[in-house]
Amino acid sequence: MYSFKELSQLFEEKFNIRHFPEYPHNLYNASQYILTLGGKRIRPVMCLMGNELFDNINPDAWHLANAIELFHNFTLIHDDIMDKAPLRRGMQTVHTKYGGPTALLAGDVMLVAAYDFINKINNDHIHQVLEIFNHTAMQVCEGQQLDMDFEQNENVSFDEYEKMIQLKTSVLLAASLQLGAVLGGAGVGNQQHLYGFGKNLGIAFQVQDDYLDAFGDPEKFGKKHGGDIIANKKTFLLIQAMHVSSKDQLIELHRLMRNNDDDKIQKVINIYKSCTVDEWAQELKQKYMAKAFEHLEEIAVLSARKKPLEQLAHYLLDREA
Amino acid sequence: MYSFKELSQLFEEKFNIRHFPEYPHNLYNASQYILTLGGKRIRPVMCLMGNELFDNINPDAWHLANAIELFHNFTLIHDDIMDKAPLRRGMQTVHTKYGGPTALLAGDVMLVAAYDFINKINNDHIHQVLEIFNHTAMQVCEGQQLDMDFEQNENVSFDEYEKMIQLKTSVLLAASLQLGAVLGGAGVGNQQHLYGFGKNLGIAFQVQDDYLDAFGDPEKFGKKHGGDIIANKKTFLLIQAMHVSSKDQLIELHRLMRNNDDDKIQKVINIYKSCTVDEWAQELKQKYMAKAFEHLEEIAVLSARKKPLEQLAHYLLDREA
Repeated sequence: MYSFKELSQLFEEKFNIRHFPEYPHNLYNASQYILTLGGKRIRPVMCLMGNELFDNINPDAWHLANAIELFHNFTLIHDDIMDKAPLRRGMQTVHTKYGGPTALLAGDVMLVAAYDFINKINNDHIHQVLEIFNHTAMQVCEGQQLDMDFEQNENVSFDEYEKMIQLKTSVLLAASLQLGAVLGGAGVGNQQHLYGFGKNLGIAFQVQDDYLDAFGDPEKFGKKHGGDIIANKKTFLLIQAMHVSSKDQLIELHRLMRNNDDDKIQKVINIYKSCTVDEWAQELKQKYMAKAFEHLEEIAVLSARKKPLEQLAHYLLDREA
Repeated sequence: MYSFKELSQLFEEKFNIRHFPEYPHNLYNASQYILTLGGKRIRPVMCLMGNELFDNINPDAWHLANAIELFHNFTLIHDDIMDKAPLRRGMQTVHTKYGGPTALLAGDVMLVAAYDFINKINNDHIHQVLEIFNHTAMQVCEGQQLDMDFEQNENVSFDEYEKMIQLKTSVLLAASLQLGAVLGGAGVGNQQHLYGFGKNLGIAFQVQDDYLDAFGDPEKFGKKHGGDIIANKKTFLLIQAMHVSSKDQLIELHRLMRNNDDDKIQKVINIYKSCTVDEWAQELKQKYMAKAFEHLEEIAVLSARKKPLEQLAHYLLDREA
């Protein structure tokens, strides 16, 4: 069996080619461009790991891993258009570099190219793969819509936010594992537990991401510290703070969100701390991790086979910054 | 066998339902909205006709027809965003009504929903259907990109423009017929001739569309007369006029395109007439129609079975305005 790092390297070697024709240049260079910006390729590797949990890697799993990574990049291109994001991984976003219309199309052909990889999959699995893939794709779009809806909504509950994060982030991680498991011949029960592992891991990851934006060490943390606070982004922390804060703190939070004080970040963090939102978030992350590991435990394979998935969980969730 | 009109009616009855979940409302109402704007549903009906040319309609052909119509509407939503079009069929475009980001997503989920219909197709045909569908989808995106590229390019040749029209318009008509033929059990040769019929029909239709914009009877013609001329849109007429006009006429054409004279439409039409671009376009349309019918002739089925396709051709191409 491969470790998480070995599989990442193997996938990167295979994936690191031009995936599109030359002509029309504008269109396909835009599609190819985002693939050259790197990324951790977590989702396709999860697909391969989901397969290898049950059996040797099925050659079709490489096609499916390609499809998943192309799908993920399709969502990145379109999300960046919708969010008007100028940068991704420190580089120009596709629409900034190639213009909105070409970026839109570059995303569209990326999605079609994903389905072209799915079409390389053997008859035995194609219907189930398409069903999971399509369902997940719809959910990811729903998550993005809810994320946009919530920007306009001051009163988003914990449950609503958690549901949105599940759709926007977690289901693709979960489905990547499950899709691999399908190709590995896993039974339905094992597939469901693996999906549950991925889904809870994904939410735990988002809790951590939200936490680190406020409380991470800015020197170790890749992103600018407090970016979510500056942008008034809904996060697990903000939603909890609005829920548990005193009336005065709530008024101050709303005031800080309307204005942009020079020390907005520090003031919001101070409120978070006095509401013990930091501790709450750490416990919440542990809760989702524990749920994830409960699902992993339930999967009926030798525990030695689960090692790479444990490595993955620690790789994703043991960051301090 | 059904006539073209009967099949249109049957398809419309089946298609005229809500195709999307209720929640998130914004997203799925936007997707559903464009489906309620009507349209002639030509492509899905062509799929059904392509099937019925060879055999009784395969139940899967209805799924495939749905997929094709959803795909077509996905392209309409995204094209309208790219073209910043305010209206479609006299109604607000999706992005005008729901905003750009939601329209973008509404298109994305529409494409995924198309693939969900494809996934209902039996194992025997799914790979071939996906192959044709994916290839066609890529081509349609390429056509849209070339169309946008050509807006910035003063010297588009006839061959380049014809290629763009093929990609943007014709291949989906051709593929709709071919996909139906696949489900009808047609052999490769018959599939290719049917594809050739659809492709040439599509180009003939575009030639006619370009012709009617300038020379159609505005009272019978749905669109505003001369809209292509006002927008400096590349058309078969403009490209030919620039090719065959005298130097003085060419200078005048360029001047008219830079400025917006009150009588720009009439002046351009006068140049078209003095270059006999109108007669040329009529002959060009006849040429493509003849090619289309040559392909239809070659399809090895009883000629009685070809009647609905002949009706379709005349329905599409015998408009005078």
